[in-house]
Amino acid sequence: MKRIGIVGGTGYTGVELLRMLATHSGVEVTCLTSRSEAGKTVASLYPWLSHYGQLSFEEPSIEALSDCDLVFYATPNKIAMNEASALLDRGVRVIDLAADFRFSDVSLWESAYGGPHGAPHLIQEAVYGLPEKYRADITGARLVGNPGCYPTATALALMPLVEASALSDANVIIDGKSGASGAGRSARTDLIVAEASDNFHAYAAGGHRHAPEMTHQISKMGQDVSVTFVPHLLPMIRGIEVTAYVCTSLSVTEAREVFVSRYQNEPLVSVVSDGEHPETRWVRGSNRCVIGVYQQQHGQLIISSVIDNLVKGAAGQAIQNMNLMLGLDEFEALPIYALSP
Amino acid sequence: MKRIGIVGGTGYTGVELLRMLATHSGVEVTCLTSRSEAGKTVASLYPWLSHYGQLSFEEPSIEALSDCDLVFYATPNKIAMNEASALLDRGVRVIDLAADFRFSDVSLWESAYGGPHGAPHLIQEAVYGLPEKYRADITGARLVGNPGCYPTATALALMPLVEASALSDANVIIDGKSGASGAGRSARTDLIVAEASDNFHAYAAGGHRHAPEMTHQISKMGQDVSVTFVPHLLPMIRGIEVTAYVCTSLSVTEAREVFVSRYQNEPLVSVVSDGEHPETRWVRGSNRCVIGVYQQQHGQLIISSVIDNLVKGAAGQAIQNMNLMLGLDEFEALPIYALSP
Amino acid sequence: MKRIGIVGGTGYTGVELLRMLATHSGVEVTCLTSRSEAGKTVASLYPWLSHYGQLSFEEPSIEALSDCDLVFYATPNKIAMNEASALLDRGVRVIDLAADFRFSDVSLWESAYGGPHGAPHLIQEAVYGLPEKYRADITGARLVGNPGCYPTATALALMPLVEASALSDANVIIDGKSGASGAGRSARTDLIVAEASDNFHAYAAGGHRHAPEMTHQISKMGQDVSVTFVPHLLPMIRGIEVTAYVCTSLSVTEAREVFVSRYQNEPLVSVVSDGEHPETRWVRGSNRCVIGVYQQQHGQLIISSVIDNLVKGAAGQAIQNMNLMLGLDEFEALPIYALSP
Amino acid sequence: MKRIGIVGGTGYTGVELLRMLATHSGVEVTCLTSRSEAGKTVASLYPWLSHYGQLSFEEPSIEALSDCDLVFYATPNKIAMNEASALLDRGVRVIDLAADFRFSDVSLWESAYGGPHGAPHLIQEAVYGLPEKYRADITGARLVGNPGCYPTATALALMPLVEASALSDANVIIDGKSGASGAGRSARTDLIVAEASDNFHAYAAGGHRHAPEMTHQISKMGQDVSVTFVPHLLPMIRGIEVTAYVCTSLSVTEAREVFVSRYQNEPLVSVVSDGEHPETRWVRGSNRCVIGVYQQQHGQLIISSVIDNLVKGAAGQAIQNMNLMLGLDEFEALPIYALSP
Repeated sequence: MKRIGIVGGTGYTGVELLRMLATHSGVEVTCLTSRSEAGKTVASLYPWLSHYGQLSFEEPSIEALSDCDLVFYATPNKIAMNEASALLDRGVRVIDLAADFRFSDVSLWESAYGGPHGAPHLIQEAVYGLPEKYRADITGARLVGNPGCYPTATALALMPLVEASALSDANVIIDGKSGASGAGRSARTDLIVAEASDNFHAYAAGGHRHAPEMTHQISKMGQDVSVTFVPHLLPMIRGIEVTAYVCTSLSVTEAREVFVSRYQNEPLVSVVSDGEHPETRWVRGSNRCVIGVYQQQHGQLIISSVIDNLVKGAAGQAIQNMNLMLGLDEFEALPIYALSP
Repeated sequence: MKRIGIVGGTGYTGVELLRMLATHSGVEVTCLTSRSEAGKTVASLYPWLSHYGQLSFEEPSIEALSDCDLVFYATPNKIAMNEASALLDRGVRVIDLAADFRFSDVSLWESAYGGPHGAPHLIQEAVYGLPEKYRADITGARLVGNPGCYPTATALALMPLVEASALSDANVIIDGKSGASGAGRSARTDLIVAEASDNFHAYAAGGHRHAPEMTHQISKMGQDVSVTFVPHLLPMIRGIEVTAYVCTSLSVTEAREVFVSRYQNEPLVSVVSDGEHPETRWVRGSNRCVIGVYQQQHGQLIISSVIDNLVKGAAGQAIQNMNLMLGLDEFEALPIYALSP
Repeated sequence: MKRIGIVGGTGYTGVELLRMLATHSGVEVTCLTSRSEAGKTVASLYPWLSHYGQLSFEEPSIEALSDCDLVFYATPNKIAMNEASALLDRGVRVIDLAADFRFSDVSLWESAYGGPHGAPHLIQEAVYGLPEKYRADITGARLVGNPGCYPTATALALMPLVEASALSDANVIIDGKSGASGAGRSARTDLIVAEASDNFHAYAAGGHRHAPEMTHQISKMGQDVSVTFVPHLLPMIRGIEVTAYVCTSLSVTEAREVFVSRYQNEPLVSVVSDGEHPETRWVRGSNRCVIGVYQQQHGQLIISSVIDNLVKGAAGQAIQNMNLMLGLDEFEALPIYALSP
Repeated sequence: MKRIGIVGGTGYTGVELLRMLATHSGVEVTCLTSRSEAGKTVASLYPWLSHYGQLSFEEPSIEALSDCDLVFYATPNKIAMNEASALLDRGVRVIDLAADFRFSDVSLWESAYGGPHGAPHLIQEAVYGLPEKYRADITGARLVGNPGCYPTATALALMPLVEASALSDANVIIDGKSGASGAGRSARTDLIVAEASDNFHAYAAGGHRHAPEMTHQISKMGQDVSVTFVPHLLPMIRGIEVTAYVCTSLSVTEAREVFVSRYQNEPLVSVVSDGEHPETRWVRGSNRCVIGVYQQQHGQLIISSVIDNLVKGAAGQAIQNMNLMLGLDEFEALPIYALSP
């Protein structure tokens, strides 16, 4: 039984890690930390996880975490970068679900997130945790930067094309839409039902932090891209859909074939047939990504990609990475059947 | 590997049976019938269950089903009653998720559902599939009538009291609320988002078919009750909450103790503490029931009970019954961790 | 043009007062106060009310308000009671949308809300602002306590029966459900979309402050009642539905006739026919109340009543009271056509 | 009092016409037709419009409609084109809310909608009912083709730029999102709450009928454009948001100034400040359009535009056109204050 730690297990990504790890036969959550909830049991805070019994939150400390085989940082940005080194030195592997280790170039990180990075020496070692791209590197890795939710949906939507050098123009447009759980468990007036349900709007249309991550990571896959990204807030709980608009000389039939071929051995990524459109409910609670490819009269290609932002977009992908890092079955404990209706 | 058949697998209860049975290590769905969808694969109809691969719907026939160890009827009322006998004769066990076998008195069934019953000789043999009450009888049973969704939430809310003969008045009021999936996968104008979201109303306030089932089944548990039941339609997908108002001479503390004691060995039924209120999201996608007990200044006791109408209120409870009937682990393949947020 | 002041115009009741008063031909909002938003325009805070142009929030002060003909207190409890006297002395009429003036017995108020009342000498003068009951008293009144949202829906659901002394038992059960706007514009985690949409639960089942108001005000209408009230939170924005369960010797036909007769001259209260059920969307944004009357096999009568909690349950009824107090057309500026879908 | 007819008043656009016309002081609905509901009153079908009293649906007939000053066709496509001529001949003005008269080139209409047009001789006379562009032509017109919902939001988002010849590339991308009421009052399984709430997906990504309307009408405004349009279904009732991506040499500041200047005298179109994003709830139930203009590091300009699809996107704009055609105050009966929350 591998011993797992979770730092900051009180946000939605922490809750989702707990939900999925509960069904894992090869690991056990032995250390769960939260400054604000120390002393409370999982069951008392999350009645829907009441079968965790007496597992309790404790004060965060490197000492307590050192006993683990792997630690998840389900924390805000700029926490993991200050603690990873100490854990790695003690032989503990680390997955950061925030953005500290998503860039292989520290200056890009600094321009997106500000201030000096707390562990620039680890940037090069850290692997970007997108298994469909970096499976071999993640296997056995000590440190993984788990991709952002929008970047995951986007990277999977563009990877087959950039790997095939099929883009005829670097400019790509990503129109993203996310369920409200993407904003986290925050007491914000603009997120309450009376304001955010039966409502829709763009946000950060002048520039969002996920755009540099997309530009950086997708460019590394084969073709330089320059991403224009506009996110929108959906009046629902879970799910991300991105609609990508790209220029290519491929016909839609050729393009769809590129996608089918690229993902044929990826059990968690599906490509729908002509005429079908991926729906976020098809992946609700599951670790899958579903993709559709379209074209109208003009040359531009349209790709629609859906994931569950909390699963493939966060905690599920993190567990997939954990499985690879620890030499376990990559797909253990990853839900593949969605909850629908 | 036990062989399982599902008749009418195209409604929500059928879909949920498929979702949960997919994770069961001891059974396999070998026969899936639907008149309207014969020839289509599960994966093509339900993209969120795409890992079922090539399992296809076929035309319903007793012959095809005879090869199964157990058959679920996820059909409208009055289908199972005409086919159960033939299957039982061939050694196939049957669980009806509709109302055909929920009454042990045929005249009560006839007054609620109309017309002659198709298999009156089986009424006495059929066991009411509420494991928390009839676990021993269900174990090894040939024929189970799976409880209705509202009756499940209500029976679990009243059972501890009626078993303890704690009601001081037979009249009980059940104010029920159900998510829209309770109305099934029906193309009805009153269920579309533009009409039924951001909306709430009572229905069948003059009398609903689930009231006789409640009155009949709860009365069999220890004390005669007479149920007034008003259901309401919630602008959401899953979840039932019933608020029960009963007369008792117990104090709220005594009453809560009766509940805690009754359910202490039931892993899927929980009783919340004073001050907490069960929420439907705590059981979303899971086979659990969560109950709260309250009292205001007057003597009346208030019980709030929540379940997922499609799981503990239908397909999950049916699988729990299947496990018992086939001698498998009662809790195999039953989700206990809810999807929340 | 009558001059109107609004104290605390930044909550939902304040916003709704502004929305409706904008269409009133006989009044003008001349003073709008908010400590937190002083200096900002209505248009900048509420883009959906942008046609208010340059009307701005100012610091609350008795002086500024003294110039008004009537002032609405859209504030929390215990504000109006400390300021009403000064305004009344200056000839300004007052409507409190909170609970300070909803009880004609100060000890009842104190046991529900705690602490000494700030203006016990005004309690007797204040009129309970339910026009369907107290139209004559409200006309020309100086001080009105605007009813609570649940109490409005409940009082209209029981008034015809208690006026007719038709209850055969004082105990009445009120199962209430409210949209999330009833909780106000509050940055609370339990109200965000990720937690409160697709979710349902009871709250305050051990006792809610609106129960004493109901018991007190309905008892004054003709028959002593003792109310058991359990509220529930709906995953939607607007609307209250209460289902009342009462004992009576009337048949359902007789009871419905009592309702029809009582409300035949009330343009904003409707009684639906047998077989119909009032829906909250029928009153969305409007000042109406729609009521249904039912009976099952037993003697208990069931009444379902719906209002928009922010309109007839708050700001709309307040404007109705304002019209009466100022001698204007009672129904001016009150929406009667709901927004549906 | 002008006499108004509505053909097909049982869909959502018909219902919305009735809701708004009820508040109009200069017109009266004298003829309301529906084949399916003939004989029923408005009040019986739409309890939220119960103050219409005894106005009833009647069988559609040119004779009955001939008595009107103006007739709205709130019908499916290809109805108005076969009846308009007869009404115009009888001196009755006509507004079609479907697509029959939205193209000034019959071949474009035929390629988008198929089959021969029923009244090609009227195509040139018909005015495209976008008052912000064609106010002078609509004033006094006999026949108006009311714009589609997506095209309205899109045209207002692009008009200032194309009038200024500010686009540096004809290709424009329109990522559209619509509430479920846009699909009409249809008993479709994919629209029921259990399927379409808490869900999101693109549709018609390979081509949607509104794209030719956009391309045609926007090109007529000053610059040829070629529109790629992908619509998406929102899990909510009302509201359209389109995010437009266009190439221009203008800076974002210059572009925003073009918008502000263009709409400064349009009371129903607003442009938000830098940093603000239009929300669909800001226009819920109102006839307004709110627009935001943004730019990221690259040259592409981003425009976000919101309307209520049933009001400015259908019935409200139709009434605005009616007012102009009949010489009434253009803004009478048009809601400008939205219902929010």
